[in-house]
Amino acid sequence: MTETNIPIIENILSANDSLAVQTQSRFDQAGVFAINIMASPGAGKTSVILQTIQALSPQLRIGVVEGDTAPVTIDANKVKQAGVPVVQINTGGSCHLDASMLGQALSQLPLDRLDLVIVENVGNLVCPAAFKLGTHANVLVSSVPEGDDKPYKYPRIYRGIDVLILNKTDLLPYTEFNTDYFSKGVEILNPQVSILPVSCRTGDGLHLWLEWIVKRVQFQQSQLTTHGSNS
Amino acid sequence: MTETNIPIIENILSANDSLAVQTQSRFDQAGVFAINIMASPGAGKTSVILQTIQALSPQLRIGVVEGDTAPVTIDANKVKQAGVPVVQINTGGSCHLDASMLGQALSQLPLDRLDLVIVENVGNLVCPAAFKLGTHANVLVSSVPEGDDKPYKYPRIYRGIDVLILNKTDLLPYTEFNTDYFSKGVEILNPQVSILPVSCRTGDGLHLWLEWIVKRVQFQQSQLTTHGSNS
Repeated sequence: MTETNIPIIENILSANDSLAVQTQSRFDQAGVFAINIMASPGAGKTSVILQTIQALSPQLRIGVVEGDTAPVTIDANKVKQAGVPVVQINTGGSCHLDASMLGQALSQLPLDRLDLVIVENVGNLVCPAAFKLGTHANVLVSSVPEGDDKPYKYPRIYRGIDVLILNKTDLLPYTEFNTDYFSKGVEILNPQVSILPVSCRTGDGLHLWLEWIVKRVQFQQSQLTTHGSNS
Repeated sequence: MTETNIPIIENILSANDSLAVQTQSRFDQAGVFAINIMASPGAGKTSVILQTIQALSPQLRIGVVEGDTAPVTIDANKVKQAGVPVVQINTGGSCHLDASMLGQALSQLPLDRLDLVIVENVGNLVCPAAFKLGTHANVLVSSVPEGDDKPYKYPRIYRGIDVLILNKTDLLPYTEFNTDYFSKGVEILNPQVSILPVSCRTGDGLHLWLEWIVKRVQFQQSQLTTHGSNS
Protein backbone atom coordinates (compact mmCIF):
# COMPACT_ATOMS: atom_id res chain seq x y z
CA MET A 1 0.00 0.00 0.00
CA THR A 2 1.61 3.29 -1.08
CA GLU A 3 0.56 6.91 -0.72
CA THR A 4 -0.92 6.89 -4.21
CA ASN A 5 -3.89 4.97 -2.82
CA ILE A 6 -4.99 7.85 -0.62
CA PRO A 7 -7.02 10.25 -2.83
CA ILE A 8 -9.97 7.91 -3.22
CA ILE A 9 -12.62 10.57 -3.88
CA GLU A 10 -10.63 11.96 -6.77
CA ASN A 11 -10.40 8.50 -8.29
CA ILE A 12 -14.11 7.88 -7.94
CA LEU A 13 -14.92 11.16 -9.66
CA SER A 14 -12.46 10.42 -12.45
CA ALA A 15 -14.03 7.00 -12.94
CA ASN A 16 -17.42 8.69 -13.16
CA ASP A 17 -16.11 11.29 -15.62
CA SER A 18 -14.62 8.68 -17.91
CA LEU A 19 -17.90 6.76 -17.94
CA ALA A 20 -19.65 10.05 -18.73
CA VAL A 21 -17.39 10.54 -21.75
CA GLN A 22 -18.31 7.04 -22.98
CA THR A 23 -22.01 7.79 -22.52
CA GLN A 24 -21.77 11.05 -24.44
CA SER A 25 -20.08 9.16 -27.24
CA ARG A 26 -23.03 6.72 -27.35
CA PHE A 27 -25.42 9.65 -27.67
CA ASP A 28 -23.29 11.25 -30.38
CA GLN A 29 -23.05 8.08 -32.43
CA ALA A 30 -26.83 7.72 -32.32
CA GLY A 31 -27.38 11.40 -33.20
CA VAL A 32 -29.26 11.87 -29.94
CA PHE A 33 -29.27 15.15 -28.00
CA ALA A 34 -29.40 14.46 -24.24
CA ILE A 35 -30.22 16.73 -21.31
CA ASN A 36 -29.93 16.33 -17.56
CA ILE A 37 -32.77 18.07 -15.70
CA MET A 38 -32.05 18.97 -12.09
CA ALA A 39 -34.14 20.79 -9.45
CA SER A 40 -35.35 20.91 -5.87
CA PRO A 41 -38.11 18.44 -5.06
CA GLY A 42 -41.35 19.81 -6.47
CA ALA A 43 -39.92 22.58 -8.66
CA GLY A 44 -41.52 21.03 -11.72
CA LYS A 45 -39.05 18.74 -13.51
CA THR A 46 -41.73 16.20 -14.44
CA SER A 47 -44.12 18.95 -15.54
CA VAL A 48 -41.47 20.40 -17.85
CA ILE A 49 -40.85 16.93 -19.30
CA LEU A 50 -44.56 16.25 -19.83
CA GLN A 51 -45.07 19.65 -21.51
CA THR A 52 -42.06 18.97 -23.75
CA ILE A 53 -43.43 15.57 -24.80
CA GLN A 54 -46.88 17.01 -25.42
CA ALA A 55 -45.51 19.78 -27.63
CA LEU A 56 -42.74 17.99 -29.53
CA SER A 57 -43.64 14.28 -29.73
CA PRO A 58 -43.92 12.41 -32.08
CA GLN A 59 -42.22 14.95 -34.44
CA LEU A 60 -39.20 14.54 -32.16
CA ARG A 61 -38.68 10.99 -30.94
CA ILE A 62 -38.18 11.36 -27.19
CA GLY A 63 -36.98 8.92 -24.53
CA VAL A 64 -36.92 9.60 -20.79
CA VAL A 65 -34.83 8.32 -17.88
CA GLU A 66 -36.45 8.89 -14.48
CA GLY A 67 -34.22 9.04 -11.39
CA ASP A 68 -35.88 8.33 -8.05
CA THR A 69 -34.53 7.58 -4.60
CA ALA A 70 -37.29 5.05 -3.92
CA PRO A 71 -39.05 2.39 -6.02
CA VAL A 72 -42.04 4.62 -6.78
CA THR A 73 -43.26 4.92 -10.35
CA ILE A 74 -45.39 8.08 -10.04
CA ASP A 75 -43.31 10.12 -12.50
CA ALA A 76 -42.38 7.18 -14.73
CA ASN A 77 -46.05 6.27 -15.12
CA LYS A 78 -46.95 9.84 -16.13
CA VAL A 79 -44.25 9.79 -18.81
CA LYS A 80 -45.31 6.33 -20.02
CA GLN A 81 -48.91 7.51 -20.30
CA ALA A 82 -47.63 10.40 -22.42
CA GLY A 83 -46.61 7.75 -24.92
CA VAL A 84 -42.80 7.75 -24.95
CA PRO A 85 -40.30 5.09 -23.81
CA VAL A 86 -39.19 5.53 -20.21
CA VAL A 87 -36.68 3.79 -17.96
CA GLN A 88 -36.66 4.30 -14.22
CA ILE A 89 -33.49 4.32 -12.11
CA ASN A 90 -34.10 3.62 -8.43
CA THR A 91 -30.96 4.97 -6.74
CA GLY A 92 -31.72 2.97 -3.59
CA GLY A 93 -31.67 6.06 -1.40
CA SER A 94 -28.67 7.71 -3.09
CA CYS A 95 -29.10 11.45 -3.55
CA HIS A 96 -28.08 11.81 -7.21
CA LEU A 97 -27.66 9.94 -10.49
CA ASP A 98 -24.17 9.08 -11.72
CA ALA A 99 -22.71 8.10 -15.08
CA SER A 100 -22.74 4.40 -14.26
CA MET A 101 -26.45 4.41 -13.42
CA LEU A 102 -27.29 6.31 -16.61
CA GLY A 103 -25.07 4.08 -18.73
CA GLN A 104 -26.94 1.00 -17.55
CA ALA A 105 -30.35 2.64 -18.00
CA LEU A 106 -29.58 3.61 -21.61
CA SER A 107 -29.33 -0.06 -22.58
CA GLN A 108 -33.09 -0.18 -22.03
CA LEU A 109 -33.81 2.67 -24.48
CA PRO A 110 -33.87 2.35 -28.30
CA LEU A 111 -31.20 5.08 -28.79
CA ASP A 112 -30.99 4.55 -32.55
CA ARG A 113 -34.66 5.43 -32.90
CA LEU A 114 -34.56 8.55 -30.68
CA ASP A 115 -33.75 12.24 -31.26
CA LEU A 116 -33.84 13.46 -27.66
CA VAL A 117 -33.17 11.82 -24.31
CA ILE A 118 -34.33 13.65 -21.19
CA VAL A 119 -32.84 12.52 -17.87
CA GLU A 120 -34.76 13.56 -14.75
CA ASN A 121 -32.26 13.63 -11.90
CA VAL A 122 -33.10 13.15 -8.21
CA GLY A 123 -34.79 16.22 -6.68
CA ASN A 124 -31.84 17.82 -4.88
CA LEU A 125 -29.91 21.10 -5.31
CA VAL A 126 -26.67 19.83 -3.81
CA CYS A 127 -25.46 16.38 -4.86
CA PRO A 128 -26.42 16.15 -8.57
CA ALA A 129 -24.18 19.18 -9.29
CA ALA A 130 -21.07 17.11 -8.58
CA PHE A 131 -21.64 14.22 -11.00
CA LYS A 132 -21.37 14.41 -14.77
CA LEU A 133 -23.72 12.03 -16.55
CA GLY A 134 -22.56 12.31 -20.17
CA THR A 135 -25.54 14.40 -21.30
CA HIS A 136 -24.92 17.42 -23.55
CA ALA A 137 -26.60 20.05 -21.41
CA ASN A 138 -27.53 20.62 -17.79
CA VAL A 139 -30.90 22.22 -17.20
CA LEU A 140 -32.01 23.53 -13.82
CA VAL A 141 -35.69 24.04 -13.02
CA SER A 142 -36.10 26.68 -10.30
CA SER A 143 -39.53 27.74 -9.14
CA VAL A 144 -40.97 31.00 -7.88
CA PRO A 145 -42.28 29.71 -4.50
CA GLU A 146 -38.80 28.39 -3.61
CA GLY A 147 -37.72 32.00 -3.23
CA ASP A 148 -35.37 34.41 -4.96
CA ASP A 149 -32.33 33.60 -2.80
CA LYS A 150 -31.60 30.10 -4.11
CA PRO A 151 -28.69 31.07 -6.42
CA TYR A 152 -26.93 32.64 -3.44
CA LYS A 153 -27.52 29.58 -1.22
CA TYR A 154 -26.84 26.76 -3.70
CA PRO A 155 -24.20 28.37 -5.95
CA ARG A 156 -22.55 25.20 -7.24
CA ILE A 157 -25.55 23.90 -9.15
CA TYR A 158 -26.19 27.31 -10.75
CA ARG A 159 -22.56 27.49 -11.94
CA GLY A 160 -22.76 24.25 -13.91
CA ILE A 161 -25.93 24.76 -15.94
CA ASP A 162 -26.61 25.66 -19.57
CA VAL A 163 -30.27 26.67 -19.25
CA LEU A 164 -32.31 27.84 -16.28
CA ILE A 165 -36.08 27.41 -16.34
CA LEU A 166 -37.85 29.58 -13.77
CA ASN A 167 -41.12 27.71 -13.32
CA LYS A 168 -44.42 28.58 -11.61
CA THR A 169 -44.41 32.21 -12.73
CA ASP A 170 -48.22 32.05 -12.30
CA LEU A 171 -47.51 32.27 -8.53
CA LEU A 172 -45.54 35.55 -8.82
CA PRO A 173 -48.55 37.68 -7.71
CA TYR A 174 -48.91 35.64 -4.51
CA THR A 175 -45.27 35.64 -3.33
CA GLU A 176 -42.54 38.19 -2.57
CA PHE A 177 -40.25 36.77 -5.29
CA ASN A 178 -37.90 39.52 -6.56
CA THR A 179 -36.99 38.66 -10.15
CA ASP A 180 -34.14 41.20 -10.30
CA TYR A 181 -32.50 39.83 -7.13
CA PHE A 182 -32.82 36.28 -8.46
CA SER A 183 -31.43 37.17 -11.90
CA LYS A 184 -28.53 39.11 -10.38
CA GLY A 185 -27.61 36.08 -8.27
CA VAL A 186 -27.65 33.84 -11.32
CA GLU A 187 -25.64 36.31 -13.41
CA ILE A 188 -22.85 36.53 -10.84
CA LEU A 189 -22.43 32.76 -10.90
CA ASN A 190 -23.11 32.06 -14.55
CA PRO A 191 -23.18 35.13 -16.84
CA GLN A 192 -23.88 33.10 -20.01
CA VAL A 193 -26.92 31.14 -18.87
CA SER A 194 -30.34 31.89 -20.35
CA ILE A 195 -33.15 32.32 -17.82
CA LEU A 196 -36.48 31.16 -19.23
CA PRO A 197 -39.50 32.22 -17.12
CA VAL A 198 -42.31 29.71 -17.64
CA SER A 199 -45.50 28.42 -16.10
CA CYS A 200 -46.07 24.74 -16.78
CA ARG A 201 -49.55 25.26 -15.32
CA THR A 202 -50.66 27.92 -17.82
CA GLY A 203 -48.17 27.23 -20.63
CA ASP A 204 -46.76 30.77 -20.46
CA GLY A 205 -43.24 31.12 -21.80
CA LEU A 206 -42.82 27.46 -22.76
CA HIS A 207 -42.23 28.32 -26.44
CA LEU A 208 -38.73 29.65 -25.63
CA TRP A 209 -37.80 26.39 -23.95
CA LEU A 210 -39.22 24.34 -26.83
CA GLU A 211 -37.35 26.46 -29.40
CA TRP A 212 -34.09 25.91 -27.50
CA ILE A 213 -34.64 22.13 -27.44
CA VAL A 214 -35.49 21.91 -31.15
CA LYS A 215 -32.48 24.03 -32.12
CA ARG A 216 -30.10 21.86 -30.08
CA VAL A 217 -31.57 18.61 -31.46
CA GLN A 218 -31.16 19.94 -35.02
CA PHE A 219 -27.55 20.94 -34.28
CA GLN A 220 -26.78 17.50 -32.87
CA GLN A 221 -28.23 15.83 -35.94
CA SER A 222 -26.27 18.14 -38.25
CA GLN A 223 -23.09 17.05 -36.46
CA LEU A 224 -23.95 13.43 -37.20
CA THR A 225 -24.48 14.24 -40.88
CA THR A 226 -21.19 16.15 -41.06
CA HIS A 227 -19.38 13.36 -39.27
CA GLY A 228 -21.07 10.78 -41.49
CA SER A 229 -20.10 12.56 -44.72
CA ASN A 230 -16.48 12.92 -43.56
CA SER A 231 -16.02 9.31 -42.57
CA MET B 1 -5.59 -5.84 7.53
CA THR B 2 -8.43 -8.29 8.23
CA GLU B 3 -11.94 -8.70 6.90
CA THR B 4 -13.33 -6.74 9.84
CA ASN B 5 -12.11 -3.55 8.15
CA ILE B 6 -14.51 -3.93 5.26
CA PRO B 7 -17.86 -2.48 6.44
CA ILE B 8 -16.65 1.12 6.45
CA ILE B 9 -20.03 2.79 5.94
CA GLU B 10 -21.48 1.00 8.93
CA ASN B 11 -18.57 2.17 11.08
CA ILE B 12 -18.94 5.77 9.96
CA LEU B 13 -22.63 5.76 10.82
CA SER B 14 -21.96 4.22 14.21
CA ALA B 15 -19.34 6.89 14.92
CA ASN B 16 -21.91 9.53 13.99
CA ASP B 17 -24.56 7.91 16.18
CA SER B 18 -22.30 7.76 19.20
CA LEU B 19 -21.42 11.43 18.78
CA ALA B 20 -25.15 12.14 18.54
CA VAL B 21 -25.72 10.40 21.87
CA GLN B 22 -23.01 12.60 23.44
CA THR B 23 -24.62 15.72 22.00
CA GLN B 24 -28.06 14.79 23.31
CA SER B 25 -26.52 14.31 26.71
CA ARG B 26 -25.09 17.86 26.54
CA PHE B 27 -28.55 19.20 25.75
CA ASP B 28 -30.11 17.17 28.57
CA GLN B 29 -27.59 18.33 31.15
CA ALA B 30 -28.27 21.94 30.20
CA GLY B 31 -32.07 21.42 30.25
CA VAL B 32 -32.23 22.45 26.60
CA PHE B 33 -34.81 21.07 24.17
CA ALA B 34 -33.29 20.76 20.67
CA ILE B 35 -34.93 20.27 17.28
CA ASN B 36 -33.55 19.47 13.82
CA ILE B 37 -35.51 21.23 11.06
CA MET B 38 -35.28 19.65 7.62
CA ALA B 39 -36.91 20.55 4.28
CA SER B 40 -36.49 21.02 0.54
CA PRO B 41 -34.76 24.24 -0.45
CA GLY B 42 -37.27 27.05 -0.12
CA ALA B 43 -39.99 25.21 1.82
CA GLY B 44 -39.72 27.75 4.63
CA LYS B 45 -37.33 26.49 7.34
CA THR B 46 -35.95 29.95 8.04
CA SER B 47 -39.42 31.50 8.04
CA VAL B 48 -40.61 28.96 10.61
CA ILE B 49 -37.55 29.75 12.76
CA LEU B 50 -38.09 33.52 12.51
CA GLN B 51 -41.79 33.19 13.38
CA THR B 52 -40.86 31.01 16.36
CA ILE B 53 -38.34 33.56 17.63
CA GLN B 54 -40.77 36.41 17.14
CA ALA B 55 -43.51 34.62 19.08
CA LEU B 56 -41.54 32.96 21.88
CA SER B 57 -38.38 35.02 22.53
CA PRO B 58 -37.30 36.29 25.02
CA GLN B 59 -39.77 34.31 27.23
CA LEU B 60 -37.99 31.23 25.86
CA ARG B 61 -34.25 31.67 25.46
CA ILE B 62 -33.56 30.44 21.92
CA GLY B 63 -30.31 29.65 20.10
CA VAL B 64 -30.03 28.71 16.43
CA VAL B 65 -27.55 26.67 14.37
CA GLU B 66 -27.71 27.40 10.64
CA GLY B 67 -26.48 24.74 8.20
CA ASP B 68 -25.48 25.93 4.72
CA THR B 69 -23.57 24.32 1.89
CA ALA B 70 -21.81 27.58 1.03
CA PRO B 71 -20.33 30.44 3.08
CA VAL B 72 -23.42 32.64 2.70
CA THR B 73 -24.89 34.30 5.76
CA ILE B 74 -28.34 35.22 4.40
CA ASP B 75 -30.26 33.05 6.89
CA ALA B 76 -27.80 33.52 9.77
CA ASN B 77 -28.07 37.30 9.42
CA LYS B 78 -31.87 37.16 9.53
CA VAL B 79 -31.73 35.14 12.75
CA LYS B 80 -29.11 37.45 14.25
CA GLN B 81 -31.26 40.46 13.46
CA ALA B 82 -34.11 38.71 15.26
CA GLY B 83 -31.96 39.04 18.37
CA VAL B 84 -30.92 35.51 19.31
CA PRO B 85 -27.48 33.83 19.30
CA VAL B 86 -26.72 32.03 16.04
CA VAL B 87 -23.86 29.86 14.81
CA GLN B 88 -23.43 29.02 11.15
CA ILE B 89 -22.06 25.71 9.90
CA ASN B 90 -20.69 25.85 6.36
CA THR B 91 -20.66 22.21 5.25
CA GLY B 92 -18.26 23.01 2.42
CA GLY B 93 -20.59 21.57 -0.21
CA SER B 94 -21.71 18.56 1.84
CA CYS B 95 -25.41 17.83 1.52
CA HIS B 96 -26.33 17.42 5.21
CA LEU B 97 -25.28 18.18 8.76
CA ASP B 98 -23.81 15.43 10.93
CA ALA B 99 -23.31 14.98 14.66
CA SER B 100 -19.67 16.06 14.52
CA MET B 101 -20.51 19.37 12.84
CA LEU B 102 -23.28 20.08 15.33
CA GLY B 103 -21.11 19.10 18.29
CA GLN B 104 -18.48 21.64 17.26
CA ALA B 105 -21.04 24.37 16.59
CA LEU B 106 -22.61 23.96 20.04
CA SER B 107 -19.37 25.08 21.69
CA GLN B 108 -20.15 28.51 20.27
CA LEU B 109 -23.60 28.69 21.93
CA PRO B 110 -24.25 29.52 25.63
CA LEU B 111 -26.16 26.26 26.25
CA ASP B 112 -26.52 26.87 29.99
CA ARG B 113 -28.44 30.06 29.27
CA LEU B 114 -30.78 28.58 26.63
CA ASP B 115 -34.13 26.74 26.72
CA LEU B 116 -34.42 25.80 23.05
CA VAL B 117 -31.89 25.12 20.29
CA ILE B 118 -33.17 25.07 16.71
CA VAL B 119 -30.90 23.46 14.10
CA GLU B 120 -31.63 24.37 10.48
CA ASN B 121 -30.32 21.52 8.34
CA VAL B 122 -29.21 21.82 4.70
CA GLY B 123 -32.16 22.14 2.29
CA ASN B 124 -32.40 18.56 1.01
CA LEU B 125 -35.02 15.79 1.31
CA VAL B 126 -32.57 12.92 0.87
CA CYS B 127 -29.28 13.09 2.78
CA PRO B 128 -30.25 14.70 6.13
CA ALA B 129 -32.61 11.78 6.81
CA ALA B 130 -29.65 9.42 7.25
CA PHE B 131 -27.71 11.30 9.93
CA LYS B 132 -28.73 11.64 13.58
CA LEU B 133 -27.60 14.91 15.13
CA GLY B 134 -28.42 14.38 18.81
CA THR B 135 -31.46 16.67 18.81
CA HIS B 136 -34.64 15.52 20.57
CA ALA B 137 -37.03 15.86 17.65
CA ASN B 138 -36.94 15.90 13.86
CA VAL B 139 -39.22 18.42 12.21
CA LEU B 140 -39.93 18.44 8.48
CA VAL B 141 -41.23 21.56 6.74
CA SER B 142 -43.12 20.61 3.58
CA SER B 143 -44.79 23.28 1.47
CA VAL B 144 -47.92 23.34 -0.66
CA PRO B 145 -46.27 24.39 -3.97
CA GLU B 146 -43.85 21.42 -3.76
CA GLY B 147 -46.81 19.18 -4.50
CA ASP B 148 -48.82 16.53 -2.70
CA ASP B 149 -46.71 13.57 -3.87
CA LYS B 150 -43.58 14.25 -1.83
CA PRO B 151 -44.23 11.64 0.91
CA TYR B 152 -44.48 8.97 -1.80
CA LYS B 153 -41.27 10.10 -3.51
CA TYR B 154 -39.05 10.83 -0.48
CA PRO B 155 -40.36 8.25 2.02
CA ARG B 156 -37.27 7.95 4.20
CA ILE B 157 -37.35 11.51 5.53
CA TYR B 158 -41.09 11.28 6.29
CA ARG B 159 -40.54 8.07 8.26
CA GLY B 160 -38.05 9.62 10.68
CA ILE B 161 -39.90 12.77 11.76
CA ASP B 162 -41.81 13.75 14.91
CA VAL B 163 -43.68 16.76 13.54
CA LEU B 164 -44.61 17.77 10.00
CA ILE B 165 -45.26 21.43 9.23
CA LEU B 166 -47.15 21.92 5.96
CA ASN B 167 -46.20 25.49 5.08
CA LYS B 168 -47.50 27.98 2.50
CA THR B 169 -51.16 27.01 2.94
CA ASP B 170 -51.95 30.53 1.63
CA LEU B 171 -51.05 29.13 -1.84
CA LEU B 172 -53.64 26.31 -1.66
CA PRO B 173 -56.19 28.22 -3.82
CA TYR B 174 -53.60 28.65 -6.61
CA THR B 175 -52.31 25.06 -6.85
CA GLU B 176 -53.75 21.56 -7.36
CA PHE B 177 -52.45 20.35 -3.97
CA ASN B 178 -54.67 17.52 -2.69
CA THR B 179 -54.47 17.58 1.11
CA ASP B 180 -56.10 14.14 1.48
CA TYR B 181 -53.60 12.49 -0.89
CA PHE B 182 -50.70 14.17 0.92
CA SER B 183 -51.99 13.19 4.39
CA LYS B 184 -52.62 9.61 3.29
CA GLY B 185 -49.04 9.34 2.04
CA VAL B 186 -47.72 10.64 5.33
CA GLU B 187 -49.95 8.34 7.37
CA ILE B 188 -48.78 5.21 5.55
CA LEU B 189 -45.16 6.06 6.39
CA ASN B 190 -45.58 7.56 9.83
CA PRO B 191 -49.01 7.04 11.44
CA GLN B 192 -48.09 8.88 14.67
CA VAL B 193 -46.82 12.15 13.18
CA SER B 194 -48.83 15.35 13.65
CA ILE B 195 -49.40 17.38 10.48
CA LEU B 196 -49.57 21.11 11.23
CA PRO B 197 -50.87 23.20 8.30
CA VAL B 198 -49.44 26.72 8.58
CA SER B 199 -48.74 29.83 6.55
CA CYS B 200 -45.65 31.67 7.72
CA ARG B 201 -46.72 34.48 5.40
CA THR B 202 -50.11 35.09 7.05
CA GLY B 203 -49.46 33.49 10.44
CA ASP B 204 -52.33 31.02 10.00
CA GLY B 205 -52.01 27.84 12.04
CA LEU B 206 -48.72 28.79 13.73
CA HIS B 207 -50.26 28.60 17.22
CA LEU B 208 -50.34 24.79 17.04
CA TRP B 209 -46.62 24.69 16.26
CA LEU B 210 -45.81 27.16 19.03
CA GLU B 211 -47.89 25.19 21.55
CA TRP B 212 -46.03 22.00 20.61
CA ILE B 213 -42.64 23.72 21.11
CA VAL B 214 -43.58 25.22 24.48
CA LYS B 215 -44.95 21.90 25.75
CA ARG B 216 -41.79 20.05 24.77
CA VAL B 217 -39.50 22.69 26.32
CA GLN B 218 -41.48 22.49 29.56
CA PHE B 219 -41.25 18.69 29.55
CA GLN B 220 -37.47 18.84 28.98
CA GLN B 221 -37.08 21.26 31.89
CA SER B 222 -39.25 19.09 34.15
CA GLN B 223 -36.91 16.17 33.40
CA LEU B 224 -33.95 18.28 34.53
CA THR B 225 -35.75 19.18 37.77
CA THR B 226 -36.65 15.53 38.41
CA HIS B 227 -33.11 14.43 37.66
CA GLY B 228 -31.71 17.24 39.85
CA SER B 229 -33.84 16.32 42.88
CA ASN B 230 -32.87 12.65 42.57
CA SER B 231 -29.15 13.25 42.39
